Amino acid sequence: MTATDHRPAGFENNDQKPLGYGRMLRKEDPRFIRGRGRYVDDVQLPGMLHLAILRSPVAHARIVSIDVSAAQAHPKVKAVVTGADLAEQGLAWMPTLSNDVQAVLATDKVRFQGQEVAFVVAEDRYSARDALELIDVEYDLLDPVIDARTALDPGAPVIRDDLEGKTDNHCFDWETGDEAATEAVFASADVVVSQDIVYPRVHPAPMETCGSVADYDRVEGRLTLWSTTQAPHAHRTLYALVAGLPEHKIRVISPDIGGGFGGKVPIYPGYVCSIVASIVTGKPVKWVEDRAENLTSTGFARDYIMRGEIAATSEGRILAIRTNVLADHGAFNGVAAPTKYPAGFFGVFTGSYDIEAAYCKMTAVFTNKAPGGVAYACSFRITEAVYLVERIVDCLAYELEMDPVELRMKNFIQPDQFPYTTKTGWVYDSGDYEPTMREALRLAGYDELRAEQAERRARGELMGIGVAFFTEAVGAGPRKDMDILGLGMADGCELRVHPTGKAVVRLSVQSQGQGHETTFAQIVAEEIGIPPDDIEVVHGDTDQTPFGLGTYGSRSTPVSGAAAAMVARKVRDKARIIASGMLEVSVADLDWTKGSFHVKGDPSKSVTIQEIAFRAHGAGDLPEGIEGGLEAQICYNPSNLTYPHGAYICVVDIDPGTAHVKVRRFIAVDDCGTRINPMIIEGQVHGGLTDGVGMALMEMIAFDEDGNCLGGSLMDYLIPTALEVPDWETGFTVTPSPHHPIGAKGVGESATVGSPPAIVNAVVDALKPYGIRHADMPLTPSRVWDAMRGVPTPPI
Amino acid sequence: MTATDHRPAGFENNDQKPLGYGRMLRKEDPRFIRGRGRYVDDVQLPGMLHLAILRSPVAHARIVSIDVSAAQAHPKVKAVVTGADLAEQGLAWMPTLSNDVQAVLATDKVRFQGQEVAFVVAEDRYSARDALELIDVEYDLLDPVIDARTALDPGAPVIRDDLEGKTDNHCFDWETGDEAATEAVFASADVVVSQDIVYPRVHPAPMETCGSVADYDRVEGRLTLWSTTQAPHAHRTLYALVAGLPEHKIRVISPDIGGGFGGKVPIYPGYVCSIVASIVTGKPVKWVEDRAENLTSTGFARDYIMRGEIAATSEGRILAIRTNVLADHGAFNGVAAPTKYPAGFFGVFTGSYDIEAAYCKMTAVFTNKAPGGVAYACSFRITEAVYLVERIVDCLAYELEMDPVELRMKNFIQPDQFPYTTKTGWVYDSGDYEPTMREALRLAGYDELRAEQAERRARGELMGIGVAFFTEAVGAGPRKDMDILGLGMADGCELRVHPTGKAVVRLSVQSQGQGHETTFAQIVAEEIGIPPDDIEVVHGDTDQTPFGLGTYGSRSTPVSGAAAAMVARKVRDKARIIASGMLEVSVADLDWTKGSFHVKGDPSKSVTIQEIAFRAHGAGDLPEGIEGGLEAQICYNPSNLTYPHGAYICVVDIDPGTAHVKVRRFIAVDDCGTRINPMIIEGQVHGGLTDGVGMALMEMIAFDEDGNCLGGSLMDYLIPTALEVPDWETGFTVTPSPHHPIGAKGVGESATVGSPPAIVNAVVDALKPYGIRHADMPLTPSRVWDAMRGVPTPPI
Repeated sequence: MTATDHRPAGFENNDQKPLGYGRMLRKEDPRFIRGRGRYVDDVQLPGMLHLAILRSPVAHARIVSIDVSAAQAHPKVKAVVTGADLAEQGLAWMPTLSNDVQAVLATDKVRFQGQEVAFVVAEDRYSARDALELIDVEYDLLDPVIDARTALDPGAPVIRDDLEGKTDNHCFDWETGDEAATEAVFASADVVVSQDIVYPRVHPAPMETCGSVADYDRVEGRLTLWSTTQAPHAHRTLYALVAGLPEHKIRVISPDIGGGFGGKVPIYPGYVCSIVASIVTGKPVKWVEDRAENLTSTGFARDYIMRGEIAATSEGRILAIRTNVLADHGAFNGVAAPTKYPAGFFGVFTGSYDIEAAYCKMTAVFTNKAPGGVAYACSFRITEAVYLVERIVDCLAYELEMDPVELRMKNFIQPDQFPYTTKTGWVYDSGDYEPTMREALRLAGYDELRAEQAERRARGELMGIGVAFFTEAVGAGPRKDMDILGLGMADGCELRVHPTGKAVVRLSVQSQGQGHETTFAQIVAEEIGIPPDDIEVVHGDTDQTPFGLGTYGSRSTPVSGAAAAMVARKVRDKARIIASGMLEVSVADLDWTKGSFHVKGDPSKSVTIQEIAFRAHGAGDLPEGIEGGLEAQICYNPSNLTYPHGAYICVVDIDPGTAHVKVRRFIAVDDCGTRINPMIIEGQVHGGLTDGVGMALMEMIAFDEDGNCLGGSLMDYLIPTALEVPDWETGFTVTPSPHHPIGAKGVGESATVGSPPAIVNAVVDALKPYGIRHADMPLTPSRVWDAMRGVPTPPI
Repeated sequence: MTATDHRPAGFENNDQKPLGYGRMLRKEDPRFIRGRGRYVDDVQLPGMLHLAILRSPVAHARIVSIDVSAAQAHPKVKAVVTGADLAEQGLAWMPTLSNDVQAVLATDKVRFQGQEVAFVVAEDRYSARDALELIDVEYDLLDPVIDARTALDPGAPVIRDDLEGKTDNHCFDWETGDEAATEAVFASADVVVSQDIVYPRVHPAPMETCGSVADYDRVEGRLTLWSTTQAPHAHRTLYALVAGLPEHKIRVISPDIGGGFGGKVPIYPGYVCSIVASIVTGKPVKWVEDRAENLTSTGFARDYIMRGEIAATSEGRILAIRTNVLADHGAFNGVAAPTKYPAGFFGVFTGSYDIEAAYCKMTAVFTNKAPGGVAYACSFRITEAVYLVERIVDCLAYELEMDPVELRMKNFIQPDQFPYTTKTGWVYDSGDYEPTMREALRLAGYDELRAEQAERRARGELMGIGVAFFTEAVGAGPRKDMDILGLGMADGCELRVHPTGKAVVRLSVQSQGQGHETTFAQIVAEEIGIPPDDIEVVHGDTDQTPFGLGTYGSRSTPVSGAAAAMVARKVRDKARIIASGMLEVSVADLDWTKGSFHVKGDPSKSVTIQEIAFRAHGAGDLPEGIEGGLEAQICYNPSNLTYPHGAYICVVDIDPGTAHVKVRRFIAVDDCGTRINPMIIEGQVHGGLTDGVGMALMEMIAFDEDGNCLGGSLMDYLIPTALEVPDWETGFTVTPSPHHPIGAKGVGESATVGSPPAIVNAVVDALKPYGIRHADMPLTPSRVWDAMRGVPTPPI
């Protein structure tokens, strides 16, 4: 398989239009570029009202009283609703996707700064916000729990006293692996390295904040909800299960979405408030977060306090890995602190290495922070696991005084070991790590870089070279422990070819900017021979698409992409039968090329897929027993996840005078199996690498000791711009997934996962002259400055 | 099978909600009753413009010049478009559905009064109409051809000189049957009766006129068209084939429709104008006809000048029927003067009688009238055929001095003759006519009525009793000669059960008021055991429904109803397999009752369809090889049409002083096979009977000799109100269709077909003392007055 063109024989080209895989321009871009995208906030309905949410100004307090009379008297206010009002309907609390409940509007206590306390519905957004200030809430302040390390202290205030019998702030414990076997290996190993590592709380900070427009038709009893969700079908089913709305009367539409990154998987109280508001007022109601609300109340991720331990021989053969994690889940256990445990973490915390034993223990606690646990481009905590293992491997290299590349190469799982079962029972489907590593070294010019580093270091310059290698588990498919809804992980897909040979493919997954309209058209084009421009991709509307779990965990291509290819093959199989009737030969006598069937040995006798479509719709007879139409549906449940991998190399320079870290170069070699649209893959990688620069060097949601969130604006919570990132250098290898019909693996999160350790490894490498083995993210100038001077990192 | 409840065993009832067939209130009525229906004219889009059409004031003229400059200068006008503008794009002419072309906007000539000449797009409807008056058209008047009887005269002006080589006004000739054999029977028969009969031009006059809103998105290249069409999928494909718009980028939405009756099957120039206008202006454009436009330019039907001949023995045994038809198709050959010939007429013109020979010849001509040929509740001209045969049978009874009931009974096709092949090769699927006739006689108290008539007649009162018996051919299915689009007659249907056990069924057909949302929910409920209230019926949107030909010719229940039942059975079959896994028994060990499967012999071990749905969506394992989800699709192509029949008896009183006809009683006994919702069936029958009163007694679109249409308002074109109709008396028999999965036949047009001959027969019967054997519709007081005095009916 060549690196640039994976089209099967016969699909290399087409006379008029490109078919199948390749660097096709994105079909969705014309509307985005021209400002014609349609986001939730673009929805305008006649008579629409506007909703604003009153949020708690404090982290932990008992609600003594709420006086809404002044707000209700505001001339443009249509309704003011408190938790007490919802409690009357049994709607004050809603389930999270993680075996917990969360207050829609606080009734007894507020548990984090920014928690929803009441909402106002008014004729316009401005009046709604004005009226919030007229609501008088009396709070009785309680001590907050902010540092997860103190959450389980005896005498710590019990945050979740709403949970029956709860006497502490314990959220859950989970473990995986063989503790005793791992201890035995550690006890006899030549070398043991242990390192405390914090992955701080970060926010995906999507361009578009969360929002919804609820339109409840009282006559039809029908709710239409435009919402920024990544999982419209899952949300619909949950609204039905929780609120008792009949599922067939709920339509959830996710229109264009300005970035999700996992932060738009959960059901936030705001969505529920807009639904309640529309039911109460009988009018459409819009709720759209402002930036401060988004940054302080929705979508947090990470917040892991970890200890990583690695045991090895003195020659650098890694024997065992052991980790202990204290997870800060905030006041409620949000999504993707999944039902059972942080599955992805447990799946890949042993990295890409063939070891003898592994063990991981994880404890989660409640604190007085906004709910965390959002799977921010991490496929169920893989980001944290990869960061941990790639950091401790580098710590081991530091102790062994080995080159980090050499250490990794020595320990890679070998090609003949795939499918490879990890020590925690996960099965890596395919991989060939050494060529990927070597491609990164080649692109980087690794040896030259090391030579340059030695030279610069000799001159007192701080140049660092960081290496990271990752294996991800994506496409949350068959694993029940990744089943956030308890409704399996299958995805539907439908393909319909119209009479004139144009087609529509309907996806259960949906795009928040990933380019589904292009990628899925290409997947189908490749199989069915209809040009991608002639294929309409429909997604993000529960009324128009089959059931499925949504877009997260890089699962669109691994799961729905497989479904799309397979449904197209079903249609092609039917087309072949119709073609055999049209050409009056047996099915076996037909060859398929470039969207046509022709008689074997006589290419002049052929019918195009378009001609077959017209015939299928009644323009002539069909073979006996063949139904009309040219379409198929599938519900695809993959047999395994897919495991993309990648080798990343980062080069940084640190200004010794300011401790500013500059990412000079970044080389990313990704292997996501078959590449459908290399341009889109590169776009995904570029975005993820930028995420990584943010997390490694700039981003952290911090709190003061009273629980005030210190990151409520993009002036405080810094995300990278074009100025902070280098020109990305990308490369690739191709190791197809053996169980995916086109061998594709999913690449949406790879760079977010793989880049932070590469950057941190580079920074630590640059600081080697200072005797530093580790420093915690974000490596801001002040933190690097402190590290260079041995000042410890503050706890939160 | 009882007459009132056809539920299969196990579906008689349900603890909470009704299941399956029965007098369920219509699910759509709450919104209609509360004024919450959403019609095309209710569509409001931001920035929407309004379109008005300039129409020809004369019937036949050459266009010398069109000056639009003053209209263009109107401050609120956005565009003025003429046929010349369209001609530049190759869009001035469009195909009809009948092998003809029609001008979108006239270029060379106008050919009927009301023809489209130009359109204006303006900011509001009023300005658009105002600006029409600013367009200056110079016409060079030509002689019009108005009476079809003169259209083929040598020297008659050639209307369609746009057609290459056309030198006369001949439209088409078709014949069916064996002319020689029929002539032989006629030559040797005891009795031959011949009668000239005219079915005048009428209009379905729906409550809602035609209209459309076109919204063309220039960035996405996507057209959304809200339109009053009865056939959204067929229209979409035609727009793609004709205008070259890509089919996957066209969405046709038929929202709530205020009556169609066949008049909303064709593509009218107005729809095309709105599309062109939206493309030209880049804005959404609305076009809605006013009542005069609707009554003068769209939707005409009938206009048949017929000779019926019947040959019989002197004992009243009918031997042969022969007809000759001159059809007036107006200036263009519209829809349902179908591709090949008026199929339905040829199918049933021999009525419900077992005869030896038959022959029909039909000639169609062009005239300077608006395009006719609309299948107004007639299933391809069945209305005319049934009227003809039931009229000449009464003429025969008149000549034989036999009771018309006795004559019919003597000649009925007998039950053991079904399936019965007519002398023109059509296959009546099932029927049992005598019980139906007897049920009507019983309900009417026929003998008592005849006794009363004799008494009244003796007193000089004019009481008439009219009988009509009809067999219809509906559900235009497999016959290629009824395939108006050349794309077959199959219909798709999809059923999806949601995780919580609610369901959605998607239809290719669509409602203009027939109650699809109720009937189809009942059909599916009956098969799958989900209450009808839990089943959402989606129709009228090409983006949300499978391909199909649309709603006309009473085909929804015969074709799509069969598809719905069969797709529900597919889903039930899958549910059975899943249930077998849940209950851990083999499929064969399961019984199905009231929406549950239970283990044979142990009803306590059972799972409901709702539980199965939840399981199917991932809440547990599925049997090996079973895909997730609970849904199916079908494309159903019936093997035959269905043939409902009915016996109608009408009682009229005529005031000898005013010649006013009062319908005193009307007894309608319909046999449409299995009855799904008797209330909806009765509603359909009531509506059709009212149609019949209109056609028989009141309605005719007349023209003066210059071609001016004399029926341009509902003051001139009289349709019946509650004052003109009696309390309908309905009854039924049930003869299921053998090839339909639930035995249903379709009843939408039965009463429109069957009632005019019953009423006219009654009027003629009342006039028997005047020696009258026939009088032409509409039997207005003036016509009846003339008939009583022997004054001939005017030709048009």
